[in-house]
Amino acid sequence: MSNDWVVGTKDDLAAELERVTQRDSTVLAWTARHDDEQIIDAFGVAPDGLLSGWTIGVKDVINTFDLPTERGSPIYKGHRPVSDAACVAMAREAGAVVTGKTVTTEFALFTPNITTNPHNPLHSPGGSSSGSAAAVADRQVRAAFGTQTVGSVIRPAAFCGVVGFKPSRRLLPLAGVATLSYAFDTIGWFTQDVADSATMFRAMTGSPTPEQNLNHKVGRYLSHQWEASAPETLKVLDYSCEALAANGIEVVTIDPLPHLESVFDAANTILHYEIFRVFAWERTHHLDLISDLLQKMFIKASDISHDDYLEAQKILFSARLAHEEFMSTNHFDALLTPSAPGEAPLIKTTGDSVFNRVWTALGVPTIHLPVHLGPNGLPLGVQLTGRSWCDKELLLIAMHAESTLTAT
Amino acid sequence: MSNDWVVGTKDDLAAELERVTQRDSTVLAWTARHDDEQIIDAFGVAPDGLLSGWTIGVKDVINTFDLPTERGSPIYKGHRPVSDAACVAMAREAGAVVTGKTVTTEFALFTPNITTNPHNPLHSPGGSSSGSAAAVADRQVRAAFGTQTVGSVIRPAAFCGVVGFKPSRRLLPLAGVATLSYAFDTIGWFTQDVADSATMFRAMTGSPTPEQNLNHKVGRYLSHQWEASAPETLKVLDYSCEALAANGIEVVTIDPLPHLESVFDAANTILHYEIFRVFAWERTHHLDLISDLLQKMFIKASDISHDDYLEAQKILFSARLAHEEFMSTNHFDALLTPSAPGEAPLIKTTGDSVFNRVWTALGVPTIHLPVHLGPNGLPLGVQLTGRSWCDKELLLIAMHAESTLTAT
Repeated sequence: MSNDWVVGTKDDLAAELERVTQRDSTVLAWTARHDDEQIIDAFGVAPDGLLSGWTIGVKDVINTFDLPTERGSPIYKGHRPVSDAACVAMAREAGAVVTGKTVTTEFALFTPNITTNPHNPLHSPGGSSSGSAAAVADRQVRAAFGTQTVGSVIRPAAFCGVVGFKPSRRLLPLAGVATLSYAFDTIGWFTQDVADSATMFRAMTGSPTPEQNLNHKVGRYLSHQWEASAPETLKVLDYSCEALAANGIEVVTIDPLPHLESVFDAANTILHYEIFRVFAWERTHHLDLISDLLQKMFIKASDISHDDYLEAQKILFSARLAHEEFMSTNHFDALLTPSAPGEAPLIKTTGDSVFNRVWTALGVPTIHLPVHLGPNGLPLGVQLTGRSWCDKELLLIAMHAESTLTAT
Repeated sequence: MSNDWVVGTKDDLAAELERVTQRDSTVLAWTARHDDEQIIDAFGVAPDGLLSGWTIGVKDVINTFDLPTERGSPIYKGHRPVSDAACVAMAREAGAVVTGKTVTTEFALFTPNITTNPHNPLHSPGGSSSGSAAAVADRQVRAAFGTQTVGSVIRPAAFCGVVGFKPSRRLLPLAGVATLSYAFDTIGWFTQDVADSATMFRAMTGSPTPEQNLNHKVGRYLSHQWEASAPETLKVLDYSCEALAANGIEVVTIDPLPHLESVFDAANTILHYEIFRVFAWERTHHLDLISDLLQKMFIKASDISHDDYLEAQKILFSARLAHEEFMSTNHFDALLTPSAPGEAPLIKTTGDSVFNRVWTALGVPTIHLPVHLGPNGLPLGVQLTGRSWCDKELLLIAMHAESTLTAT
């Protein structure tokens, strides 16, 4: 998607507000919003900072002191936290104005909610950060926070055709964010382009902008999960690799990496064990208000033993070390790999996170770049996965890659 | 302390309630409590489980749906969460009855609050889990939850003379716990003896009781921070090592480990960087309600750059690998090391966490065992630190060690 629409001025704000008025009843991205006058007034008193002039949406599992946080569950209907999550407070401190809370699936898991894909309302926006991805894609807001436990930032970014960034595991505070897996939960965000994503990263971390280095090496990686991909996914990967190579980025094809083979299942074990415990209160007080899908997950999860969990953690720990060793020994800056199996599916599911689980479990930063439209006229793109704690380096490569993809 | 007082029966409950009536105005361990009748009624409807018959106190940074959670700060005066933290819900699911919320220092940091040391009200109970340690030590409750970011479980356990256990980093969910450092925060608990601590561990994790193995090897470790120790600390360490050795535990003295030398400062850098971000909302909305001590910490913290933070994380990561390698290569099950510089100081400070910071930063499980009284009639004990994810093994060694310490 080209970046022909830049916000940050009064005209842009007016355009966003108008967009919400026109499109909200179709896209259904919001659970709660300030009214237009409140938003305009908020700009008048927002501090000066890196995010001055930005409107921001906040996934409804992230606390805000001025709007409810319902976590996509009737258990939390009308719940109003007393304070902002740390990431929201930092964004406001940097000048951003929070316009509203965006739709999440139930507890940021897999039961679809009401949001539709801005490109076609019969299709899913992805999940669990459904509303955040859709609101940014539909240009109702400049940026939006999401969370990723498996694929909840990258997948909706792919389906909606925006940039989605998930930083390194535990690089950003989860204070005030309703977690579901303490091993994996990570805050991320959606923007129109990589430059905005990098600006948000600076606002969250205080990181300086590093010097651009155009000497990049990227691995083309189909992964152990490749059989889940649709034909259009190979096309967008190949197209992207050619574009990168034509613009001076070294691209090397990598066979599925043996050290990643067990990560997928180990991550699943860890997720189930943790979810069973994290939702102890909801399970014991409001089981009747929990979806059938999640109740079934609890039953499966209750069978996972502490020893299974420890074994899975050991597998993951070894894989993290091996992956870092692989990336550094072979001088890879990033891997280029699918974000999702293909275009957005019909709206009855949020789609498959099969191409996200391994990277989230490894804890490496990952970013989705939209590339073009697929056979059904829905967005397709690619994922770049980096090295742990090398977030700003990944953002640099992504900026370089984005320029080659939009140039071709 | 001998374990001559076992709760879990009606008589024990009556004794606890009587103890609160008599001693609460001196010890001041509670911020909020259910009244006696409510507690007795709760036992009538509590589910059967591992913690049946247990009364539990909950540090006031941990959410409870039925009592306020004020975080030791006027900013959260009267705040009542809608749900329990995961650890509290799991304890209740296992049959425990929550009797009340225990005093914490401001945001679980270092500004002392009102609780006194049950052994002498002129002395500190330690912090930040002050009320939890004091309530258990004073036998007002069978067990209590705390949290540790630097030394907030082990230090108060030492000063109050109870068993304090901090599990491996991130082994237990922090959902519903107000965090302050996402790198280090860990839930822990206080009990009269190691057996109770192990039972709590089983209730939290589903871990089975492992087979007792009496073939243990322990390192006697004074650490790089040894110069902070008072003379009585050497005495209790030597006494304990002799008792362990006399009962078949191999004890080997270890010089300060080079791989741990930089951990102390790196942990401090990480803590400051994270606290500045975690408290973004409190800083920007209620600076006037934050203590001078914490405001000064924010000023210092605002100077720490993202690159400083990443560098500190790298130091820690290397140290964790090196420490695991050291422990496994030399077949150490645990290190025996000071819990605190000496006896509890006078009440104007919560004491020094100098002997806790390195272990919390490494993420290894640690446990405090009370041993005897020091020159001022206040408790002294030792800390055993284990290997990451080997919590049940540490609890086994601790049980063995405890039996030698109480036998001699």
